[in-house]
Order: sequence, then C-alpha cells, then structure tokens
Amino acid sequence: MGKTYIFGHKNPDTDSIMSSLVMANLEKKLGNSEAISCRTGKVNKESEYVLKYAGVEAPMLIENLEAGSEVIIVDTANEKELPDNINELKIKKIVDHHYVALHTSYPLYYRAEPVGCTSTIMYKLYKENNVEIDKTIATLMLSAIISDTLLFKSPTCTVEDKNAVIELAKIADLDYEKYGLDMLKAGTDISSFTIQEILNLDAKETSLKEVKTIINQVNTAYIPDVMKMQTDLEEGMKKIIEEKGLDLFVLLITDIVNSNSQVIALGKNADLVEKSYGVKLENNTALLKGVVSRKKQVIPIMTENA
Amino acid sequence: MGKTYIFGHKNPDTDSIMSSLVMANLEKKLGNSEAISCRTGKVNKESEYVLKYAGVEAPMLIENLEAGSEVIIVDTANEKELPDNINELKIKKIVDHHYVALHTSYPLYYRAEPVGCTSTIMYKLYKENNVEIDKTIATLMLSAIISDTLLFKSPTCTVEDKNAVIELAKIADLDYEKYGLDMLKAGTDISSFTIQEILNLDAKETSLKEVKTIINQVNTAYIPDVMKMQTDLEEGMKKIIEEKGLDLFVLLITDIVNSNSQVIALGKNADLVEKSYGVKLENNTALLKGVVSRKKQVIPIMTENA
Repeated sequence: MGKTYIFGHKNPDTDSIMSSLVMANLEKKLGNSEAISCRTGKVNKESEYVLKYAGVEAPMLIENLEAGSEVIIVDTANEKELPDNINELKIKKIVDHHYVALHTSYPLYYRAEPVGCTSTIMYKLYKENNVEIDKTIATLMLSAIISDTLLFKSPTCTVEDKNAVIELAKIADLDYEKYGLDMLKAGTDISSFTIQEILNLDAKETSLKEVKTIINQVNTAYIPDVMKMQTDLEEGMKKIIEEKGLDLFVLLITDIVNSNSQVIALGKNADLVEKSYGVKLENNTALLKGVVSRKKQVIPIMTENA
Repeated sequence: MGKTYIFGHKNPDTDSIMSSLVMANLEKKLGNSEAISCRTGKVNKESEYVLKYAGVEAPMLIENLEAGSEVIIVDTANEKELPDNINELKIKKIVDHHYVALHTSYPLYYRAEPVGCTSTIMYKLYKENNVEIDKTIATLMLSAIISDTLLFKSPTCTVEDKNAVIELAKIADLDYEKYGLDMLKAGTDISSFTIQEILNLDAKETSLKEVKTIINQVNTAYIPDVMKMQTDLEEGMKKIIEEKGLDLFVLLITDIVNSNSQVIALGKNADLVEKSYGVKLENNTALLKGVVSRKKQVIPIMTENA
C-alpha cells in the first residue's frame, strides 16, 4: 500500500484538522501504515489551542500532490474546497457531514451523515471497527464536535454529537463545558490578523444556483469588536469580489455567546440576503437573529431564494 | 414521518429492484413505517425471475413525484439516472457502489463502498443495525449480488460480495451456483423485445469528460445470437444518437459464460473505443476480451482516454 494523504477543506477549521488526525490514526490501526494526516492551509487559533492542550503536532502542510496520489477526504465533499488538481488524485474515501458537490469517475468509500461534525462519524467508525479511543484521540474528537456545534448551540447539533462529547469527555477526563468555552474563545481572537486574513479565515466558495458566492464566517464573543472594522472589511470584500468575479460576498460575524450573526453583504446579488431572511440591509449590514449555522441556516435558505 | 420513496436508477437492473425492496424493509424495521419500495422503470426478465422465485411483488412504479417528496436512492448517485426533478426532491439517504455524480445543497446520509453490489452494503447495514435477515430478504440480496458480479466473475466482485452470498445462501436455503446461473440465463432472454427495447435495456447516459455518451449493456449466453441483429441495432442506435445529440453510443454485448464483451460503437467519437482498448473497429464492432464490467472496465478507462 502506498502513501495515503488525509486532509479536510481549504481554510481548515478545527473539525478538518482533528478529523484528519483521528482518521490517520484509525487507518494506521486498521493496517494502513502509510496514512498521513495533512492539511491544505494554516492552523487557526482554535485548533492551535486544541493541539497545544492535547500535545499533538499539527498535520503536515501539503501544497502540490502529485497526480495519482491516493487521498482520503474528511469534512468536505466540495471540489471547490479541495486542491485544484483534485480530479487528478485518487480519492479512496470520504467521511463528511456536508452536502455533496463533487464528481468522481470511479467508485469509492463514502460515509456521510447529517450530524453536526465529521468527528462524530469518526467516533462511530472507531466503535464499528472496535478500535480503542485513547485520551488524546478523545480530546481531538470532542474538540472538533464542540467547535462545529458551538457547544451544542448550533441547530446542526444532533443527539449523536452531544452523546459523543459526553462519552469522549469521560475518556479525555476533562470538563467539556469549561474546556469548550475556553477553546471557542481562543478561536475568536482575531487581534493579530490582517483584514485579508480575516476575510479568508473560514471562507467557503459556493454557487447558490447561478449566484457565484463566498460565504465567510468569523466567530466572536462580542459583535461590536468586529464591526468596528466594517469599513476596512468592506474594502477588502470589494477587492475579492472583483478578483474572483463574484456575484455575492457574505460575511457572517457570529456571536457564539448569544447565538446571532451580524451579516455584511456586498455584490450585485446582496438583495438575496434581504429576500432570504426578510431583513433590510442598512449600510450593507443586518442582524440575523438565531442564525449561527452556515450549513443549515444559510446555504440551503439562500439557495432556495436564489 | 411522511412517506419515503425508495428507488434505484432508471432502467432498473436486479440490484436496483432488490435493494429498493431490501432497503424499504430495513427502514420499516427501524421505525419508518411509511417507507415504500419503488422503481422508475420496467422490471427486467432477470428481476422477474427473482421476484417470482421469492414470491415478492415488484416495487411500485413511480412517474412524477411531487416536489419536496422525501426519497432514498439506492444503486446510483448519478443525477442522469434519476427522475428529472431530482433537484426538487429531498434525498434523505443514498446507499450505492458507483461513482459520485450528483450535487445536493443539504447534508444527507450517504453510504457508498467500492464493492460489487449495493445489496452487499445492505447486508452490512442489516448486521450493523441488528435487524434479522429472513429467507425472503436473503434471496433478494443474494440475487442482486449474483447479478451485479455475474456469479463472482466480474472484476467488480470483492471478497465481501462473495462472502455475503455464501452467508445469505444458508439463510435462503438454496444452491447459489445453480440458482444464480438459472437467474442470469433468464435475464439474457431478449427474444420478446423490440430493437428499441433492447437498446434501452440497461442504457446509462454519462459524460466521458466532454463526450456525451450512452453505454448500454446486454447480457447473453451466446454473442452471435445478438450480433445477428447488428444491422437493426445500428439503425436504432443512430436514431438515438440524433435524438439526444450524442457523441458516442456504446453497446456492450456481454457473454456471461466466457466473460467477454462484443462492442458496437457509433457516433463521431467512436474512435474513443479503439483508443481505450487498442482495438480496431471493423464494421463498427470489436471483441473486448475479458471486459464485463461497465463500471470498472469501461467508464474509467474511456474517461481517461476521452
């Protein structure tokens, strides 16, 4: 068996980083000794916090994989979030919890479930394969789940996600509520970032029917901290719209404490936000009450209204 | 919970019919009382043989599902093989063993494995969920596996497929080799079909990169029985090429006893067959030695050469 590179989406979030590590460990335990945990972008502050806590090295950064390389994809099934030459790579497996947006010309192992986090599915795969979950793996998994579900507050959170965290916290021997809040807060610290970096933090490029869109999400413990940069953020968004020929750029500034999102929307289809949420953009911005999940509360609703 | 319609691909083969029945039974056992086994096309002779043997009614024929209907897809993940309004339906689950060729705007349950048959995955799902497999369900499952793997002769056949049949034959209390050959032979009887019906029997529309193609496969126990209709078949193929604006129509006439396929190729890209297999088409036809699997030995190879 040759090398298998395991990675998640571009702009990796905590789930992409942790599920890659957790999947590489599972593959090794199942006999694939050349499974390598990888990432295709910078480790964010939240993930840094987790890796430091667990004493684990970050996955290997990969940039150009040779055509024909075998890969396992976690936490996405979207071509736009994968390396540009994804169609030249051989996808052996996908484990994901998102919508389906890739084509292959060959059959593969594909495991997706509509749960809150890829690591929740990983937890099930460990159990199904009778592979032991040690303290470190448990910490990585529960961190991913807490990150994706915003400590169970996101509408994407399912009973399975919550139960997995409760079980994993016993193995990891930690107070998941305290640990989780500290981890989430570590992730909201954007003080050291440039405007460009903020706009790229968790940017997902997608097509809402014909509307070419980027939806970026930035978590915060206090919305005004981010909104004071509105002028500079808009300037940066306009540049990206022009460079990429976008119809719409949506920036969600998500309050992880109160579970709302302030949205900034620019581009010729900005009215799609108004139509989708029955709000009026004033000075390009509006508060979307109760909206915290891009996957469940933004992409399907805006697709339907596009 | 509302109704859930469960079906496979257009021109349903034995796996599509049986996996739909087997999945509906599993859903019911797991509490989804309104799961309905369906089909989107005619039951073929092989499937008729199985249903009669097992004493099971054919799945319900569906034509126009209302927008918003909940569906479970088995044995395909290809938009082109699904109802035209598939994007208006809500796909709850997919269980499949083919390549990925559909997009969704929402997460779903997706279980695919690179095994020879959807029913092999169904067999695993029954076991994982601790649902009993009775004699009838065992017969349906093993029939699908024997059909898709041509009694283990297809290169798509894996150890898992074979082991499943051996286990299921014990439950079904039958001699799978004898039963399997009788079933396969029943499926090769095309004496009652018009040319149009033969050309539509197991036709799959696909894009080999930019080459708009139909690949149709007809099983036979003796190739000359089918080749004596070559002139009429070609006339019918030409009509379909014109109607659908195809670049290529590939008809595989597969000898299930000796594991070869005679190919008839028409259309402006017919040379793609020559390039892919290093053969020369004479009078539009050539023998492809050892080729029996469209999925494993045709689509990926012709895609690579397209």
